[in-house]
Amino acid sequence: MLVSGIHYRTVWLAGETVKMIEQNQLPFSFQIHDCPDYRATCGAIQTMVVRGAGAIGSAAGYAMAQAFLAGDDAALAKTAIEATRPTARNLFYAVERVFAAGLAGGAGLAVAEAEKIADEDCAACQAIGEYGAALLPENCRLATHCNAGWLAFTDYGSALAPVYVAARQGKNPFVYADETRPRGQGARLTAWELYGEGIAHAIIADNACAFLMARGQIDLMIVGADRVAANGDAANKIGTLEKALAARYFGVPFYVAAPTSTVDAACPSGDAIPIEERDPVEVLYQSGPDENGVMRTIRVASPSSTASNPAFDVTPAALITGIITEKGIFKPENIGQALLP
Amino acid sequence: MLVSGIHYRTVWLAGETVKMIEQNQLPFSFQIHDCPDYRATCGAIQTMVVRGAGAIGSAAGYAMAQAFLAGDDAALAKTAIEATRPTARNLFYAVERVFAAGLAGGAGLAVAEAEKIADEDCAACQAIGEYGAALLPENCRLATHCNAGWLAFTDYGSALAPVYVAARQGKNPFVYADETRPRGQGARLTAWELYGEGIAHAIIADNACAFLMARGQIDLMIVGADRVAANGDAANKIGTLEKALAARYFGVPFYVAAPTSTVDAACPSGDAIPIEERDPVEVLYQSGPDENGVMRTIRVASPSSTASNPAFDVTPAALITGIITEKGIFKPENIGQALLP
Repeated sequence: MLVSGIHYRTVWLAGETVKMIEQNQLPFSFQIHDCPDYRATCGAIQTMVVRGAGAIGSAAGYAMAQAFLAGDDAALAKTAIEATRPTARNLFYAVERVFAAGLAGGAGLAVAEAEKIADEDCAACQAIGEYGAALLPENCRLATHCNAGWLAFTDYGSALAPVYVAARQGKNPFVYADETRPRGQGARLTAWELYGEGIAHAIIADNACAFLMARGQIDLMIVGADRVAANGDAANKIGTLEKALAARYFGVPFYVAAPTSTVDAACPSGDAIPIEERDPVEVLYQSGPDENGVMRTIRVASPSSTASNPAFDVTPAALITGIITEKGIFKPENIGQALLP
Repeated sequence: MLVSGIHYRTVWLAGETVKMIEQNQLPFSFQIHDCPDYRATCGAIQTMVVRGAGAIGSAAGYAMAQAFLAGDDAALAKTAIEATRPTARNLFYAVERVFAAGLAGGAGLAVAEAEKIADEDCAACQAIGEYGAALLPENCRLATHCNAGWLAFTDYGSALAPVYVAARQGKNPFVYADETRPRGQGARLTAWELYGEGIAHAIIADNACAFLMARGQIDLMIVGADRVAANGDAANKIGTLEKALAARYFGVPFYVAAPTSTVDAACPSGDAIPIEERDPVEVLYQSGPDENGVMRTIRVASPSSTASNPAFDVTPAALITGIITEKGIFKPENIGQALLP
């Protein structure tokens, strides 16, 4: 997608160097981070220079290709890459594919396979965008939560892909971006993405979404998902559940957009999805630039109190209008069909 | 209520000086602000050293009494006090009463009337606390939104009054305080109040409330109100509506606590309540102390984006379990009965 009018992916290979957008610096500074070898790429994955399932998968594939390009011990490199983010499914899948290609045909095939993985991620997100864009009438006002945009994938994104496609179709969408406390990915990343693509938008406090729905100012809502259970329940960033409840009450269609790789057939329902409890400091402190551009961390809560900080919640299938995948739009109870070959 | 073990009201008269807690400095610094004459008290009301309907009413009554004590032109003083916060109903009511008492009986009667107004505010809040405390079982876990605590009144508060009374009854309540973006009154003021009273609590991101309800971790919710319409619809801080929707979905009782002075019989329903749209900077920036205690203002949103910032929303009567007043607990559709003599 566009940044200052230039098209970027989140991660790409240039010669033997993996290049990626330095996401830890966004939205206050746009920098390209260079990884000259697979070790550097591993470090970047670990320190979240690149984040999001799709983008991590591409980065890991490129890292594996780098090992073949440099003549490094491929098995050793594979182990190192797999150790960077041990819960990222896309990472293992990508590393396996590039490792097999490299063993079979050397560095050339490894690079080709890594490029194919990145292209597949882009194509899946673009397909989500095209299916989703059909849901968006002209001049529609859409709400989203957290960041399920192109920064989390190789390009296009999931929840924001329909917006990007609709905008290119001349439909002029407007986006309300929930700021998404405590980490603020909506105010920081989603807003930054939308600005780059020239899409009209406003950040709102998470508290304001139901009010705007009550006023008839939101036509539909699309969010991403971290995991979709076999029954269509969807785990996503904390607060998604509240938005789904508000959408249901006010009759606003509520969609989840996610590639089919997000669907976990082995997970029967949302009850089986463990919810991460994160550090209270995310709620109690905030970071950002002061009026001189100096990054500061400030306390935003009473000094002697602490916080509870669940990071995700589960939206029951009954509250989801449809799940937008690269294979089409499914009713949540039929999401299993999306996994059929 | 207690601050470091000492009982305070938000505002009181000491000799000819009006003293008040400097609320602009909370929760990071606890200071008492002295107003030697009515002009200083007017300035403190205007600059929100004191805020909240009940506390403003008491402060205005004391300011009027100060004018009589100092032998100032009472009519001139009355006009000046009434100009400080022109939408505060309690302020006009208090000023009228003290002005009439002073004209009739001089400074002594004016002071007595001002003290009576402050005492009445405390008594109403204490009654709310006693009615509300009966709803709280032992060891209950309660959620609240924004700050409807004693800082907004002369003492006790509205939504938090039942908590304070229940705690003194040995019921050991636990409070989840929504941080209440964008201004953070929950994380800052509610948490600060609860700490002072020694009540166990945790701040949560506003997004987390429905999740905790889904997990069965919230037994009931009590919020304040800025205005209650004749049909029982309640306007309160933005986000209250989302919490009420979550409470309804998960079967959590949802109460509004407010003195009957908050009920506006002339307002037929929530549709007639205008909603203030506030400055986007409240969403885009945050202020607080850095690690050295220096107050900083930082940007928490993408640099080129703006925000929409509705400050209040309306919770329909159908989502409210009951309205806790100083005259008892009413079903929202029967709130008109609370206004009968």
